[in-house]
Amino acid sequence: MNNHFDILILGGGPAGTRAALDAAGYGAKCALAEPAFFGGTCMNSGCIPTKFLLGGSASLDLAATQQRFKVVLSKPVLDFAALQARKNRFIKGLRVSLQKDLENAGVAVFKGKGQFTGPQSARIGGAGQELTFDKCIAATGSVPAFFPTMKADGANVLSSAGALGLETVPESMIIAGGGPIGLELGEIFHRFGCRVTLVEGMPRLLPAEDEETGAAVEAHFRREGWNIFTDRRIAELNAQDGRAVLRFDDGEELRAARALIAVGRRPASAGLSVEAAGITLNERGFAVCDDALRCSEHVYAAGDLNGRAMLAHAADHQARYAAAHAAGKITGPYAPPPVPACVYGSFEVMRVGPTAAELRKKGGDIGISRAVSASNAIAQSLGHTRGCVRMLWEGDELRGVAAYGGGVSHLVTAAALLLKLGVKKNRPLPILFAHPTLDELLESAIFAAKENIA
Amino acid sequence: MNNHFDILILGGGPAGTRAALDAAGYGAKCALAEPAFFGGTCMNSGCIPTKFLLGGSASLDLAATQQRFKVVLSKPVLDFAALQARKNRFIKGLRVSLQKDLENAGVAVFKGKGQFTGPQSARIGGAGQELTFDKCIAATGSVPAFFPTMKADGANVLSSAGALGLETVPESMIIAGGGPIGLELGEIFHRFGCRVTLVEGMPRLLPAEDEETGAAVEAHFRREGWNIFTDRRIAELNAQDGRAVLRFDDGEELRAARALIAVGRRPASAGLSVEAAGITLNERGFAVCDDALRCSEHVYAAGDLNGRAMLAHAADHQARYAAAHAAGKITGPYAPPPVPACVYGSFEVMRVGPTAAELRKKGGDIGISRAVSASNAIAQSLGHTRGCVRMLWEGDELRGVAAYGGGVSHLVTAAALLLKLGVKKNRPLPILFAHPTLDELLESAIFAAKENIA
Repeated sequence: MNNHFDILILGGGPAGTRAALDAAGYGAKCALAEPAFFGGTCMNSGCIPTKFLLGGSASLDLAATQQRFKVVLSKPVLDFAALQARKNRFIKGLRVSLQKDLENAGVAVFKGKGQFTGPQSARIGGAGQELTFDKCIAATGSVPAFFPTMKADGANVLSSAGALGLETVPESMIIAGGGPIGLELGEIFHRFGCRVTLVEGMPRLLPAEDEETGAAVEAHFRREGWNIFTDRRIAELNAQDGRAVLRFDDGEELRAARALIAVGRRPASAGLSVEAAGITLNERGFAVCDDALRCSEHVYAAGDLNGRAMLAHAADHQARYAAAHAAGKITGPYAPPPVPACVYGSFEVMRVGPTAAELRKKGGDIGISRAVSASNAIAQSLGHTRGCVRMLWEGDELRGVAAYGGGVSHLVTAAALLLKLGVKKNRPLPILFAHPTLDELLESAIFAAKENIA
Repeated sequence: MNNHFDILILGGGPAGTRAALDAAGYGAKCALAEPAFFGGTCMNSGCIPTKFLLGGSASLDLAATQQRFKVVLSKPVLDFAALQARKNRFIKGLRVSLQKDLENAGVAVFKGKGQFTGPQSARIGGAGQELTFDKCIAATGSVPAFFPTMKADGANVLSSAGALGLETVPESMIIAGGGPIGLELGEIFHRFGCRVTLVEGMPRLLPAEDEETGAAVEAHFRREGWNIFTDRRIAELNAQDGRAVLRFDDGEELRAARALIAVGRRPASAGLSVEAAGITLNERGFAVCDDALRCSEHVYAAGDLNGRAMLAHAADHQARYAAAHAAGKITGPYAPPPVPACVYGSFEVMRVGPTAAELRKKGGDIGISRAVSASNAIAQSLGHTRGCVRMLWEGDELRGVAAYGGGVSHLVTAAALLLKLGVKKNRPLPILFAHPTLDELLESAIFAAKENIA
């Protein structure tokens, strides 16, 4: 049958494209359906464009830091529209190259949204092609979430995708949401002179991280001149007379040229007709999976759709597993290593393993040791003096590494490898750290005094 | 006896101070003699000041790169003298803090140069204190080397220490030596508008690295506008009429406002009266050691003085061993892990493990796999598109990692850890790489096609 595939993949983001390339590599007859752009949120309106804009404007931030030391007399002048255009060209190139990779691998590519019509069948998009499959990997990802009190009009009140598409820098912006998306986008516009107001409903920024991290990040952005509200409820956020207006539940109002809604993301599970395939969604709309990432007998859910870890590299890792499992190459449960996470910009955050709060809940002999950026020559050279690398211990066993401060995203892979190596407190390390490197903060933290926290 | 010490340390650089702090920690009665500044070459006229000047001026380089893309319209303006003053304050602070650490640890500190007077005795400096010791750790380091054809006058023709002390930026500079010191110092002055001419006697820059690396570095700095001569013999380099003049052996002359001699370093073994302690120097003046870093029955040589690996972190590692061995805490030969090495700046170099040429000499099934910076989103965001991470394999076993290009010094610790973990070609990795990170180049290189090179 022409319309039958060994493996059908719904969604062309990090999980879907990885699953398709891997499955094709295993010799499976493979199809992939994507209604919009290859590369998904990560490549088109997430990790990649934000990092491209942060990287392209990094000189502004470095210069601002040295200006405080009177080393920089005047900052560089950047053309925001030129940077946006360069970003758009770069992403377009990535999309084209990804589509070519899929075609070269022999993946049948369908332009359209998939909708299940049975346990082993789906209809694709408007044209209504009917496909049948042995196995399906559903990887439709996620979309920005809005609270009912918030209305994005696409002009004055924007989603992250909308903010990333702006061709000029607004003179002011309200950002609802103090998570990674709000912080990174806020930083981009701040660098170009936009006055940023950040509003977070939880008591601190980055609520998924430890209190210490959230407090350090908040202190940094306050020093940068941001207006920051935490623990405040938004009654209404919408566009009025060509501006964005935010009203708190106590009646206080904020106004700005633009607003960005970055309060989270929800799974793109609507319109999939999951019931036809026997898939259950949880109360938040995520596909419920077994320990082999199967959400039904014949369907796997990989990436944001299953809600396990809404990060591109987690999606990629799940997709590798799902493709291998669907192709019969592996058996056994999905058991990933710790998923690293970073927030990028002038003041970064990095973590591999549990937070201190999570570890404390487990009980036992939990301790923390730390090394401060001010003790590191590379950090000092860049003026990054307020950061900290924190190591979490259970007895003498390293259980997690977290850090905040300038450049700490660069430590994330070494941290993951140290965890994997099974580092023990104060025992000689099996490698030599190069001097001077920011990485030496990891070494210092391993040998620093351990404070008991549970 | 008041003037008898369990362990006497000669030299207050990275090896000497580490040995003193460790030995004191083991409970040894400890003395350290240093004629000049604590922190040695690394802290006072090497790694630290160069990295501080590179870090403090990084915005100039990032802006220059984005200027080529027309994203930056005008570069920042920096005050070189202010940066130098900030660097000097920083280093002064480090020195003071190091001296305090030594005093707090109970180390008796002597200001003066040590000179052996017997197998277990030494005289310190001008005051002529006579000290006796059970064990000595000689860590006198190294000093800039000059060829007999070169004369540094300290005004127009400078050593690296002299160049690092300049308060104004010369309009032009000749640099003799295309190793790490010449490249890093050249980059600092280039960023501030100095026209750099680099002369290397060997056929390529960075002769200790693979040909590919030297060629990539040369191409980069040529694009930056440097005038580069390789494989050329210098007949004479000296000051004439307030300028620096270099004459090649074929008679061609170069002139510049200043010249920097960076042709290497020689051990600071002169004046130590090594013969009194029974120490042998090799033909280049390095102390000849046994496999426990002993250069005589009672004396260890750590750091540059033994010439094994003239890098601060190698000195530190040797000193830890020597202190523990001298204090009777460990036995067995000194067997360090691979010593990582980096060159810093706009186009960096990193290596852990052998070069391809060294590995090829060993024979066997040697291969190389690579990932290019252009494939990495973080590198692209910064405009770092010409770099490459190279993995060296013996059969399926990872033997070395080398890289060149923007930011690759950030990969050095992860590379060392991957080597230590015993990564095998194309086998699943035990960690998850965060996306997007420059570190993903390491992952890509592990899975890239392997080309046989021997």
